[in-house]
Amino acid sequence: MTVRIGVIGTGMIGEEHSRRITQTLTDGEIVAVTDVNAEQAQRMADNLGLSAKVYDNGQDLIKADDVDAVLVTSWGPTHEEYVLAAIEAGKYVFCEKPLATTAEGCRNIIDAEIQAGKRMVQVGFMRRYDSGYKMMKDVIDANKLGEPLMIHAAHRNPEVPERYVTPMAIHDTLIHELDTFRWLLDDDYKSAQVIFPRKTRHAHSKVEDPQMVLLETVKGVRIDVEVFVNCQYGYDIQCSVVGEEGIANLPEPQSLQYRQAGKLSSDILQDWKKRFNDAFDVELQAFIDGVANGEIGGPSSWDGYAAAIAGDVCVKAQESGQIESIEMPERPGFYA
Amino acid sequence: MTVRIGVIGTGMIGEEHSRRITQTLTDGEIVAVTDVNAEQAQRMADNLGLSAKVYDNGQDLIKADDVDAVLVTSWGPTHEEYVLAAIEAGKYVFCEKPLATTAEGCRNIIDAEIQAGKRMVQVGFMRRYDSGYKMMKDVIDANKLGEPLMIHAAHRNPEVPERYVTPMAIHDTLIHELDTFRWLLDDDYKSAQVIFPRKTRHAHSKVEDPQMVLLETVKGVRIDVEVFVNCQYGYDIQCSVVGEEGIANLPEPQSLQYRQAGKLSSDILQDWKKRFNDAFDVELQAFIDGVANGEIGGPSSWDGYAAAIAGDVCVKAQESGQIESIEMPERPGFYA
Amino acid sequence: MTVRIGVIGTGMIGEEHSRRITQTLTDGEIVAVTDVNAEQAQRMADNLGLSAKVYDNGQDLIKADDVDAVLVTSWGPTHEEYVLAAIEAGKYVFCEKPLATTAEGCRNIIDAEIQAGKRMVQVGFMRRYDSGYKMMKDVIDANKLGEPLMIHAAHRNPEVPERYVTPMAIHDTLIHELDTFRWLLDDDYKSAQVIFPRKTRHAHSKVEDPQMVLLETVKGVRIDVEVFVNCQYGYDIQCSVVGEEGIANLPEPQSLQYRQAGKLSSDILQDWKKRFNDAFDVELQAFIDGVANGEIGGPSSWDGYAAAIAGDVCVKAQESGQIESIEMPERPGFYA
Amino acid sequence: MTVRIGVIGTGMIGEEHSRRITQTLTDGEIVAVTDVNAEQAQRMADNLGLSAKVYDNGQDLIKADDVDAVLVTSWGPTHEEYVLAAIEAGKYVFCEKPLATTAEGCRNIIDAEIQAGKRMVQVGFMRRYDSGYKMMKDVIDANKLGEPLMIHAAHRNPEVPERYVTPMAIHDTLIHELDTFRWLLDDDYKSAQVIFPRKTRHAHSKVEDPQMVLLETVKGVRIDVEVFVNCQYGYDIQCSVVGEEGIANLPEPQSLQYRQAGKLSSDILQDWKKRFNDAFDVELQAFIDGVANGEIGGPSSWDGYAAAIAGDVCVKAQESGQIESIEMPERPGFYA
Repeated sequence: MTVRIGVIGTGMIGEEHSRRITQTLTDGEIVAVTDVNAEQAQRMADNLGLSAKVYDNGQDLIKADDVDAVLVTSWGPTHEEYVLAAIEAGKYVFCEKPLATTAEGCRNIIDAEIQAGKRMVQVGFMRRYDSGYKMMKDVIDANKLGEPLMIHAAHRNPEVPERYVTPMAIHDTLIHELDTFRWLLDDDYKSAQVIFPRKTRHAHSKVEDPQMVLLETVKGVRIDVEVFVNCQYGYDIQCSVVGEEGIANLPEPQSLQYRQAGKLSSDILQDWKKRFNDAFDVELQAFIDGVANGEIGGPSSWDGYAAAIAGDVCVKAQESGQIESIEMPERPGFYA
Repeated sequence: MTVRIGVIGTGMIGEEHSRRITQTLTDGEIVAVTDVNAEQAQRMADNLGLSAKVYDNGQDLIKADDVDAVLVTSWGPTHEEYVLAAIEAGKYVFCEKPLATTAEGCRNIIDAEIQAGKRMVQVGFMRRYDSGYKMMKDVIDANKLGEPLMIHAAHRNPEVPERYVTPMAIHDTLIHELDTFRWLLDDDYKSAQVIFPRKTRHAHSKVEDPQMVLLETVKGVRIDVEVFVNCQYGYDIQCSVVGEEGIANLPEPQSLQYRQAGKLSSDILQDWKKRFNDAFDVELQAFIDGVANGEIGGPSSWDGYAAAIAGDVCVKAQESGQIESIEMPERPGFYA
Repeated sequence: MTVRIGVIGTGMIGEEHSRRITQTLTDGEIVAVTDVNAEQAQRMADNLGLSAKVYDNGQDLIKADDVDAVLVTSWGPTHEEYVLAAIEAGKYVFCEKPLATTAEGCRNIIDAEIQAGKRMVQVGFMRRYDSGYKMMKDVIDANKLGEPLMIHAAHRNPEVPERYVTPMAIHDTLIHELDTFRWLLDDDYKSAQVIFPRKTRHAHSKVEDPQMVLLETVKGVRIDVEVFVNCQYGYDIQCSVVGEEGIANLPEPQSLQYRQAGKLSSDILQDWKKRFNDAFDVELQAFIDGVANGEIGGPSSWDGYAAAIAGDVCVKAQESGQIESIEMPERPGFYA
Repeated sequence: MTVRIGVIGTGMIGEEHSRRITQTLTDGEIVAVTDVNAEQAQRMADNLGLSAKVYDNGQDLIKADDVDAVLVTSWGPTHEEYVLAAIEAGKYVFCEKPLATTAEGCRNIIDAEIQAGKRMVQVGFMRRYDSGYKMMKDVIDANKLGEPLMIHAAHRNPEVPERYVTPMAIHDTLIHELDTFRWLLDDDYKSAQVIFPRKTRHAHSKVEDPQMVLLETVKGVRIDVEVFVNCQYGYDIQCSVVGEEGIANLPEPQSLQYRQAGKLSSDILQDWKKRFNDAFDVELQAFIDGVANGEIGGPSSWDGYAAAIAGDVCVKAQESGQIESIEMPERPGFYA
């Protein structure tokens, strides 16, 4: 069975996903596209050689009879509306992060999904599909490190544009870690604190960079994450889990090892798309397969909600300089 | 367009390839299968949920109207016959190594393919599709190491069964390196020598293990390959290219890095199928895409022939203990 | 010139230092020893084949005419008394950490040393003499990383005895980092915070383990140190300095790299004495050479005082759970 | 006891050794120096602040009453004469490699030493004192790798001057490996072969570079050594011992690990003196201690002889292109 997919939002990530569905993955076909910029939607369809209908708006696309599932890759503030409409229309929906720009928006989606009676939404936290993180998850679950006690992590980008401001370090950058650690540890957050080290000269005026985020989980695991988005040297994701019996570090991305010009070296990636390219493939294939089988998995609306709540508290902690507590509502049995 | 594929030989590698065509790759469908053991062919079709016809023999499968392309994964000595039949039937054929068990057999295929007037055959040298080797090829081609001068390599297996005898170190094991180095260096072999170190106590009586194979190319590159098929510790493929300006080493397969029990360690793979799983995927997808586009690439009959000639000389060198010269016939313009 | 040294305290570290002065270093000779346990002092002298006089008490040893310099390796609470006596007697003194068990005690030494008019005291912060840390210092000073912004560090021991209690994580363990970071960064501390992650099952009842210590410097560098003294797997000192232009990590101690039993591995040290053996050699040789030349350097009384002040605030922060500010008195020109 | 040392030859290595005896090591004092260039001998004495007598010639220096032991660091062709004179004078002698420039010269020394009735000579094969090689020796001797089967090695220099010609790749460069492998394996050589890969464009006209040397030991271990003296990128010594149960690699020299400018890198040394600086220290201290104790160890005249014989055969193999056999005379019980 081929899953017929409608894509809402044909910007960079929308086009990337459309390309992989069309050229790399199996069992999915893009039959409908729309974008706030209609020309761009058409251009993408042409570029990828899609025989897809270009819709005026997302709502019509969602309702179209030949659309089995919806991909929401539009501007963040529009996510909630489209996800709700997809649930309403009884269609599976893959939503890029954020699920919604407010915790309340996420809650609305959760309520709608519970009412629908089955999992309809997969959120685009692709790290859960990265081979390195999956190894880490397996090792933790198999108790090979003993109980996890601490995580040391870093999220580093070579640089960010001027429109990137301090809270985006949480909402755009740390958001991935916020989901990943919950999943790795099977745990929830209890408190957050944000520390601002001396600012790098490479940061624009409206962003504090780097930042250090400290998280505490319900089970007592303590996490420190360096968020450094103008680190200059590359795109670098580090994660080290310290357990009672030992420590595991995420693998470095594959590179040749050189002996040249006085250095023993390997290359560091510059581009997050390359770092997680395979994870995006596996993530979307899982969605397509789930739709085909009538049962989707992966990061749920609840996970999107939990990340949103934690993110909001982290932004509050940026502002207060204090340790701020994170209160997660009780998890509905639906998401157990 | 979906490429309809017939599979001849449903042993381990035949089943693996069928599985990936069915479950992982795009645009290919297995519509016909056959095996010397008919029950096994049927069992595989059942296991994979194929709606494929089970044929009594490879010849009938090849001639079937609904078979667009043929996968030859049968016992080595039968390869020549099936590849020739596929060419005769005008059907693209993917042939696992060896292309034929004799250089003469390979030559027959070459002659038939030239007569057919276009590339019909892709040989299963999957390393050319491995991400690490591709990085190495790119670096050499971009002249980042200067002219290559030497290659140091190792091909190590944890153990081999009793039926594995000394010449298999060449025909079954080194054969991959024989193709890979020609491709990496864009060069041909000029001589071979085989050295037998002290034998490991873990080797069975009929196999000299380890062996060291020394190869010389036409351009003067010197290559040493350790073949060690009872190394105990894992499946380990090493390749270091030494150039005028620097050296590049193949990456280690991805692993978490542990600090545990007094060791800083990472895992070494035990299984060649895991090592080259992704390469097999890319290789077969390239074949399917090539068939769909009416133009296949990758390792050619000529490459299969060249590896066979070099392999035969290596076996001669095992027996003589001498430096043996390798004479490659002139390459037809067809394979330029 | 041979420097004639008197050793006060012949416990483990006293014996180690005496051994290296006698067997490894140049230009030093141990001519006098004393210990609260006189038999042990004699036994050490015999073990090392010293022709040293055994004194009843440290004060007499310090005053002895043939003692040029004093090594204080006795029980911590006695350090202040002996260091003051040595200064009084006009003799150079090497004092193992802590310089004194209270900041006030350190201050007394500083006042005495200033009154003496020249540097008389070298404090046993041996990391400044470790080849890896020296590389790090050179790289920072040469501005190769740009301005330092953060340090991520870890101090891990395989296990500690039952008498090790929570504040010792600061006074006995972190104390080395407290000195090292001041020296690396040429900076002072401004605040401290201590976080207690979930406790490892391997820790005794009277010690919170692991701990995470967060330090802020005057220049705004933020430091996180994991102190984990029952980590099981080895003695492991990590230090990563994150600068505006790049990051440098302390080297791993030298080990063979193994491929064995499914693992690519190297050994992790188990014993801090092995980790810093060379540093101890260099440190004590520097002291002996300094005494011979009439001008000693290295960690000063002021450095011992600064570490003591920071350590006291860290213990306060252990108790309060709050961010505690660290107030360093103005540095006298004497120690500029 | 202080060992009074006379130094014959005050060129680079002579000055280095004199410096370390004077400034770094214990229990040795340089009391006499001589050089074919008397001014240079005086200059070195002045530079190092030695109160040493400058002799007109080596013979007089050797006979001087206040010289306990002799260091021969003069031009290679003069070694034999001075070593023989030292034995004749009953004085311990440390001789830089080569022991003599001909196997016959080495044999003369052996005969004289046997006649003297005790070990008088230590040859300057410093790698036996390198911490990495010592780890390797320990691991082999403890049988942790099982029986050694192969060694893969490389000896790379960034560049060599124009006077460096093809046979020097053996006599000046490989000579260290020739001793090291005998010692690591406790074995002797049986045959040698030299292969010339394509020549690097960076080599001068009178040196074939790189070269690959293949050695066979009596126990059947097979060794390949890449000698590449214009490799450009650094001074790099590699050694990998492949045993029945696993493999061990020599550690890389200590370096910080950087993340900078798109690279994860560590520094490669450029200078062999830095690479083996510590080994030189340990080597010479062992000699001094041996002299003081009246019993020296380390690389013997026999080891110098064995390396000379193997070196001569390697040069023969350079010329013949054939596998040449190495015949070691029976080892006298004296050197058992």
